[in-house]
Amino acid sequence: MRVGVIGGGQLARMMVPPAIELGIELRVLAEIEGSSAAIAATAVGDYRDAATVLAFAREVDVVTFDHEHVPQPVLAELIAAGVPVRPGPEALAVAQDKLHMRERLTALGAPVPAWAAVHDASELGAFLAAHGGAGVVKTPRGGYDGKGVRVVRAADGADDWFASIDEHASGGALLVEELVGFRRELAQLVARRPFGDVAAWPLVETIQRDGVCAEVVAPAPGADGLMDDARELATSIATGLDVTGVLAVELFEAADGGLLVNELAMRPHNTGHWSIEGAVTSQFEQHLRAVLDLPLGDPSPRAAWSVMVNVLGGPAGETMPDRYPGALAHEPGVKFHSYGKESRPGRKVGHVTATGDDLDDARSRARAAAGFFQN
Amino acid sequence: MRVGVIGGGQLARMMVPPAIELGIELRVLAEIEGSSAAIAATAVGDYRDAATVLAFAREVDVVTFDHEHVPQPVLAELIAAGVPVRPGPEALAVAQDKLHMRERLTALGAPVPAWAAVHDASELGAFLAAHGGAGVVKTPRGGYDGKGVRVVRAADGADDWFASIDEHASGGALLVEELVGFRRELAQLVARRPFGDVAAWPLVETIQRDGVCAEVVAPAPGADGLMDDARELATSIATGLDVTGVLAVELFEAADGGLLVNELAMRPHNTGHWSIEGAVTSQFEQHLRAVLDLPLGDPSPRAAWSVMVNVLGGPAGETMPDRYPGALAHEPGVKFHSYGKESRPGRKVGHVTATGDDLDDARSRARAAAGFFQN
Repeated sequence: MRVGVIGGGQLARMMVPPAIELGIELRVLAEIEGSSAAIAATAVGDYRDAATVLAFAREVDVVTFDHEHVPQPVLAELIAAGVPVRPGPEALAVAQDKLHMRERLTALGAPVPAWAAVHDASELGAFLAAHGGAGVVKTPRGGYDGKGVRVVRAADGADDWFASIDEHASGGALLVEELVGFRRELAQLVARRPFGDVAAWPLVETIQRDGVCAEVVAPAPGADGLMDDARELATSIATGLDVTGVLAVELFEAADGGLLVNELAMRPHNTGHWSIEGAVTSQFEQHLRAVLDLPLGDPSPRAAWSVMVNVLGGPAGETMPDRYPGALAHEPGVKFHSYGKESRPGRKVGHVTATGDDLDDARSRARAAAGFFQN
Repeated sequence: MRVGVIGGGQLARMMVPPAIELGIELRVLAEIEGSSAAIAATAVGDYRDAATVLAFAREVDVVTFDHEHVPQPVLAELIAAGVPVRPGPEALAVAQDKLHMRERLTALGAPVPAWAAVHDASELGAFLAAHGGAGVVKTPRGGYDGKGVRVVRAADGADDWFASIDEHASGGALLVEELVGFRRELAQLVARRPFGDVAAWPLVETIQRDGVCAEVVAPAPGADGLMDDARELATSIATGLDVTGVLAVELFEAADGGLLVNELAMRPHNTGHWSIEGAVTSQFEQHLRAVLDLPLGDPSPRAAWSVMVNVLGGPAGETMPDRYPGALAHEPGVKFHSYGKESRPGRKVGHVTATGDDLDDARSRARAAAGFFQN
């Protein structure tokens, strides 16, 4: 069994350990030499080039992804060549364009913030006027980690984006959403295989800083009443969009206690890294099982609490292992994950996870461990 | 940080996932192309050839091992070249020769079965006469998985081995030990770093079939009264022999309830595979930390019970993944480990581990999972 992963980032890297354990051959098409997933990189090339991707894909049983950026024309060539692509192009199209995502979620009846496609300042102004004078404008394509997202409080607040918008992307429109007054952010991850069954991890709480995931607590504290709704919502989205592999549904817990869908990702996701140690089956193992259409593993938690803290930044040119003598001595029970990248301020270079019976203890250990690398 | 592993078997393979997680570069000198550890194999060559090993070793920060068979003259050249070798040649010499092992253990005051070095049938006969008429004869070198071990009940019972013995190995002697009437077999694993600290996993019970490890239960049931003794014994051996990395002490629980040392291994060991899921720090991660002289991780168990069952044999030419559709569906909570080898009858091609609060349940799930591959 050979799985081909397009993209050589940390998500591809973290698929390698479960592939080795299961005895599945993983091949990665990386963007660069020395990528995070270099140990499994059998090709280096441009994922936007159909010939490059096709040559890579012919050597594997199924193609999956480290990211959602492979262009639809390239995906279409894979399909035409008979290569299984999971998730498939139609599902990926939803993850690639936030306007398309909002349309599809609305059609599925999923709870979402009020939204509109706006083509100019006038349309934006009308939306703001109808929603309390503020909104969140998003570029439909290319945003990540807080980029391409902006809170606006005036009709001219997105003029620069309107001026530079690609007419062909989403019909020249931006997405605007109401500014949701939420209690906190949550994430529900599920995995679905082509056979149709879905496995759901417990709902988790995510703490964002500057638009970047900083910390994840699994399960989400005090959210027992939301668990079933979140699982059913994510399952219905995965099924409705025919997602295969891992689907991450980023959620707001609204002021009224209900759930609203914020974003979708169709791949292993930062909010699921806790599952490497915290669940019987990690999101990376489950993704491999799902895209190979193998029976899914048990997603149950292995500890009362798991806390994942991202390692961001640190002095330029350092790597996490440079600080292991201090960090490992201080936190012998924390699990350290380095992505094989050199640090620079704000760059996500790894994460740490602590598990245990006491949430405060696990959180303080994970934060202390991450702190060793960040100053 | 670069760790070089000599030998490309499943132990080297299972070091790769924690190396990826920690961001440590692992390089393997494999015997053959397509070894179990092929994903990390940067060289293929003969570990008995000093030039091959030296060229490999110059590219890494420390050399360690998948097996104990690297000849002492080769190790001496590594030391002369300034390469850190862990465990070191003197420690490895103890693992390489069972007579030397018995001598050193006896000198350390470790409890061992009565033993003698015997050079001919007459000496063997004298030992048997003094120990109830039966004994276990072992070739000092080269034995594994029950090979080179024989129960004898007559002075001429090892004549074939005496006839073929290498005069230069252990002075032309065989090892004979009393036939111990033991209740069961146990194993105590520890890891020691050059700095001197030792971390001990809980004592485990091992069930052998035909001289091969079949099943491991962690912790050893009903062995609370032996835990401290076993840990102290293994710690004293690791310290006394200056072992670095993982030390496995295979033990008999004697008829009188005491412990006797059966064998030593200075590397990750089959009786520690349960620790991948069953302990906070697995033997493979701990071995990497230890040989890099990094602080050791917490070896505490993560579940009340862990049961590991080896996958032996299966139809020739098959691999474990061929049977995943049935096996994974039946046992969604069991962790499957394939060594990337084709099956043949009796060959160790992988293992499975189940964890849980109930020993009988974990054992039956692990046995059921392994059974999918064995007929």
